[in-house]
Amino acid sequence: MAMTLGFLGPEGTFSEQAAITYCAEAELVPIASIPEVADAVEAGEIDEGIVPIENSLFGSIIPVLDFLIKAEKSRIKYELAIPVEQCLISEPDMDLSKVARIYSHPQALGQCRGYLARTFPGVDLVASLSTAGSVSDMLLSEEPAAAIAPYRAAEIHNAAVIERGIEDGKSNFTRFAVLGHSDHVQTGRDKTSMAFWFSSDAPGTLYQALGLFSNRGINLSKIESRPTGESLGTYVFLADISGHRSDKTVNAALTELAGITSELKILGSYPVMPDIMGASGS
Amino acid sequence: MAMTLGFLGPEGTFSEQAAITYCAEAELVPIASIPEVADAVEAGEIDEGIVPIENSLFGSIIPVLDFLIKAEKSRIKYELAIPVEQCLISEPDMDLSKVARIYSHPQALGQCRGYLARTFPGVDLVASLSTAGSVSDMLLSEEPAAAIAPYRAAEIHNAAVIERGIEDGKSNFTRFAVLGHSDHVQTGRDKTSMAFWFSSDAPGTLYQALGLFSNRGINLSKIESRPTGESLGTYVFLADISGHRSDKTVNAALTELAGITSELKILGSYPVMPDIMGASGS
Repeated sequence: MAMTLGFLGPEGTFSEQAAITYCAEAELVPIASIPEVADAVEAGEIDEGIVPIENSLFGSIIPVLDFLIKAEKSRIKYELAIPVEQCLISEPDMDLSKVARIYSHPQALGQCRGYLARTFPGVDLVASLSTAGSVSDMLLSEEPAAAIAPYRAAEIHNAAVIERGIEDGKSNFTRFAVLGHSDHVQTGRDKTSMAFWFSSDAPGTLYQALGLFSNRGINLSKIESRPTGESLGTYVFLADISGHRSDKTVNAALTELAGITSELKILGSYPVMPDIMGASGS
Repeated sequence: MAMTLGFLGPEGTFSEQAAITYCAEAELVPIASIPEVADAVEAGEIDEGIVPIENSLFGSIIPVLDFLIKAEKSRIKYELAIPVEQCLISEPDMDLSKVARIYSHPQALGQCRGYLARTFPGVDLVASLSTAGSVSDMLLSEEPAAAIAPYRAAEIHNAAVIERGIEDGKSNFTRFAVLGHSDHVQTGRDKTSMAFWFSSDAPGTLYQALGLFSNRGINLSKIESRPTGESLGTYVFLADISGHRSDKTVNAALTELAGITSELKILGSYPVMPDIMGASGS
């Protein structure tokens, strides 16, 4: 029986593309929202789930991190980065000079503002519920139309990709985390993600915590203080360090860290990605 | 002549609400995007601009931080937090049991998924380009409709607010930064925002930097490592500390920090907010 792998549906999104890249043989299960993907993993309804966790333009995707902080059974067991490439999509024989409407999610329309202003000045921009849904909307349009969506959405609907990579800023990647019920096994080139917080805001608490890694030569590849969501201003720290939690040195540092924080939650140990993500784990 | 204050338009958004809260006497200038608000301040076309900088659910709003890192003349000179409260809005005499369509920005529809499933099961959800625009879309709808948008959007269109605070997660605040051409004057209860990065990823560089504050009893209220946008994995650090850059101790720490980083950029010194933001500056 194939492994079941949940992803943020519908089909045709970057999340589906990430799911296929991670494991083409898995039985893919589209799920309506990020929290529901995570909940399904936690409840054991699916073997693994893949969720966006960080975007190179928009930073960390908070609901996923919040889920992991609260989760009891779920761990990050893998990560991968997918380029976010918006495409201009239309019907195969469309005369582009006649296009009167362009459909997409408002965020994707925003990412392509410069391109749209140059290439389609004055054309009506119409909001869709998702980028993938914008291709369906475009196909149903009474006026000549185009859509902005991932390549995969055009494939699914047999529509034509007119132009790829039309977003204004380049080098936009989304990092996805695969959630499962255990860490990844040690590979010799791993990282460990964690969350921790303190009972007091005294100066030096974070400094003291980071010293536990620094003194052991463990590199900190990411650190973030985030409002807890209760109110802005109360912070939880999220950190990525080099090494697997079962490495002796890492384990010693984490044990000591647990002693000086009011809470330490290990989110998972998993392989460092060599390519795009290389620098973050070096 | 009134001060000119740019904000993320159109009217009826949370940004307009923040602008009015900050300075009701200013001449408000709606501007189409966050980068354009920031650019107009930098170019001196407006006196000040107000932009969202952090959301308690979604974290930092990256384009603003990227702008400030590159800006030459703009500084953060004030901050304030506004509750993000989504409202169900309709025409004054609407029979809610007849509502067949609900318009909003897909992100707002997502924030209210639980409410919509309970209160309007099976009703068509229709995407609008902005929450404020969804009220116009609702008023033009041929079928009985409602919209999800900020309170202010209903006021502008003389529509009725049926219910306030319908988002699923509570305690959602957005922190806004006022950008100007100078820091705020010292008030005795200030904070300073900065960005810095290192030429090497050696373990301990950040630890060493934080020690410069910790050793002087200066509290670090926020720290964040962010991909630079060139590719995921190369990080710039963003930090908030207690105190004004013209305080003697703060100034000494910043001078020393400049010596060990490859670049240190002070984003501004400004008053700590007492209420919601209190804990972040204590």
